[in-house]
Parts: sequence; structure tokens; C-alpha cells
Amino acid sequence: MDGRKREIRSDGNGNADILEAAAACFMEQGFSATSIDDVARRLGATKGRIYHYYSSKTDLFFDVHREGMDRLFTAVEAAAVAPGPAGVRLGRMLEAHALASMENHTYIAVVVQGVHMHRMAATTPAQRRTLDAVMDMRRRYEGLFRRMLEAGMEDGSATVSNPSVAIKAALGAINWMSVWYRPKEGETVDDRRALATSVVRLLRQGFEPR
Amino acid sequence: MDGRKREIRSDGNGNADILEAAAACFMEQGFSATSIDDVARRLGATKGRIYHYYSSKTDLFFDVHREGMDRLFTAVEAAAVAPGPAGVRLGRMLEAHALASMENHTYIAVVVQGVHMHRMAATTPAQRRTLDAVMDMRRRYEGLFRRMLEAGMEDGSATVSNPSVAIKAALGAINWMSVWYRPKEGETVDDRRALATSVVRLLRQGFEPR
Repeated sequence: MDGRKREIRSDGNGNADILEAAAACFMEQGFSATSIDDVARRLGATKGRIYHYYSSKTDLFFDVHREGMDRLFTAVEAAAVAPGPAGVRLGRMLEAHALASMENHTYIAVVVQGVHMHRMAATTPAQRRTLDAVMDMRRRYEGLFRRMLEAGMEDGSATVSNPSVAIKAALGAINWMSVWYRPKEGETVDDRRALATSVVRLLRQGFEPR
Repeated sequence: MDGRKREIRSDGNGNADILEAAAACFMEQGFSATSIDDVARRLGATKGRIYHYYSSKTDLFFDVHREGMDRLFTAVEAAAVAPGPAGVRLGRMLEAHALASMENHTYIAVVVQGVHMHRMAATTPAQRRTLDAVMDMRRRYEGLFRRMLEAGMEDGSATVSNPSVAIKAALGAINWMSVWYRPKEGETVDDRRALATSVVRLLRQGFEPR
């Protein structure tokens, strides 16, 4: 699948609109109820155009995940390199995660769907391989945050009782936004930033008064 | 559906094992891939026994939700009435929510599934009514926490920038456990309590040192 991905990426992103249409279909209908026909119809293209890039629906589902996770990695890695104590950088990374999740909410809804499908037994071997690969990306992603928290505990800029559980809880608070967040008509990037700040403030400071 | 539910409840809970089996099937296979046959097979009973209580798979799915939400309400309402400042009681309610979610993780996995299905368009009118009723229960449940947080902001035992967003984030941190928590072989109630405390500690105190 790696060779295939490289081929797609060197293609001047001719498949970008396929990914957008697929993400929207998977989000609205779920993986099992979505057909390649549905994606083609939403795209106003032929199935042949999609099959030029993807050999199956599972392949396409995986590439939506890869694209969604790529966007999250890009946003969060940029936030991670800014200077400051690790605890402060962790706060910025979580805000970047929240903001990127809102700005790419169709992709992220599909990623969350993949995470839930991974729990279920009713998958084919090809789907299972794809879901395992998706979980690998998620683990690498979670590792970025956990290592920053551990660095914060070393330099004194963060304190938690259990870093691994705290990171799962912090990311969970943000990932759960895929259940309740919808872009509002006329919403600006500042509105999304304010929302990201509110969520991350709870994770940074807690609800107990200081 | 209310009349039907009362009838079921006055039945000495003769349907309890049906609910257990259905929750496990829905969790493992998802709603669409599960049939009444699957539930009967897992139960070692006839389909007739299930149809005695439920007229359709959607009916059964709803009752798994109702039972899961009932268990959450029971646990959290007990935690809410204990004395203390509202901020402290909110912490106990969140711990009760986390603990009850772990102890009823099959039911909660199905509740989470219903929340995600609610986002999707590919549902029948009967499913839509059921999912709307599920969302109503969730909203009432969230209201318990939000009102306690608001009371905490009044009595000075809680501080957040946006109570409504903070509660969604706090519950999200716990609800996301349905993705990563699995009961471990030999796990005790103290292990689960420790996990609940770790998650809620982040929400109470944040990761920034005090």
C-alpha cells in the first residue's frame, strides 16, 4: 500500500476531490452503507475515475484516514516545535489538535468511525489490516502528546497522576467534539479558536479554582 | 413505547438476559450487522422469546440504550446528593460516571454507537425516532452535570470559561474511554476506581502545576 500511496501523492493531488467526496459520504452514511457509486455520484464523476486511484472501498476508506491523520500530524508538529516549557507546548499542541479537528471535521468523523470499527469483530481480513494501520497512526500520534507531557513532568511544567491515562483523557475530551461540534453558518477561525481554547483550558487548569 | 416499557419492567426483568446478549452483539458487530438471530444464538434461545418482548431490532436497540442510560443515571444521581460544595460533588459525579461506564461497558459501547448513528443520514424513520429519544436521554443526563457546574461557579467551588463547553469536554474525556478501556483479566473494582480517579483528576486540576 505504501507504493500506491507514493504514486498518488506524486500525482499533483488529482485525487483530492475524491477524498473530499468520500469523507463526506463515509461521515454521513457510515462505511458499510457507502458504495463507490455514492462517492462517484457526489463527485459528479464516473466510478472509473475513482477506480483509477483506488482498487476498493476499503482502500479509499484507508486513504481518507491517512489524509485526516496527515493533517492532524502537520498541525500538531508545527505547534510542538514552538519554544517554551513542555507543559506550555503541550497546551498548544492540544489547541492545534482541536482546531485541526474542527477544520477537517469530515475527515476526523471518518477517523473516529475507524476507531470504533476497530473494536468490532465483523470485518474482513482486508478491512482488519486497514484498521490496524489506522490504529498504528493513532498510536504514533498519541505518542507525540505523551512524550511532551512526560517532558513537562521532568521540567516541572506539568503534573498528572498517570501520564498515559491523562493523555488519553485529554485527547478524548477533544476527540469527543466529533459528536457535538458542527461548523456554524458564518463561523470564523476566531470562533473555532475560542472553542479550542475553552476545551484546552479545562485540560490545562481543571475546573477547581486555583 | 412507554406502555411497552412499563410492561417489560413489571415482568420481573425476564428480559435482562436478552438485553445482555443484545448489548454484546451490538457492541461487537454494530447495529446494522446484528440480526435478531444473532442475539437468539448468543442467548441460546429462540427468536420467539425475543419477539415476546421486542417487536423489532430497533426496539431492542432502544431498550439496550434505555437500560445503559438508566444505570448511568442511577450511579450519578447517587453521587450528586452527597453533601459538599458543588465543585466537589461534580468531581464525584464524574467519577461515578466513569466507574459506571466501565462496569457497564457493553451497554455504554452501544450508547456511544447510537450517538454516532444519530449523526448519520442513512436511517429509517423508526430508527430516527429511536435515536432522537436516545439523544433526549443524553441531553437530560448532560444537564445534571452542567447544573452542578453552574452551582459550583455560584458557590465559588468551580471556575471554567464556558460551562456548557467544559461539561461537554469533561464528559467527552470519560466517554472516549469506550474506545480504549477494556476490562482486564483479574481487574478489581479498586483498579477501576483508580482509573476513574486518574481521569477525573485531570478534569479537576488540569495538567499545569498548581
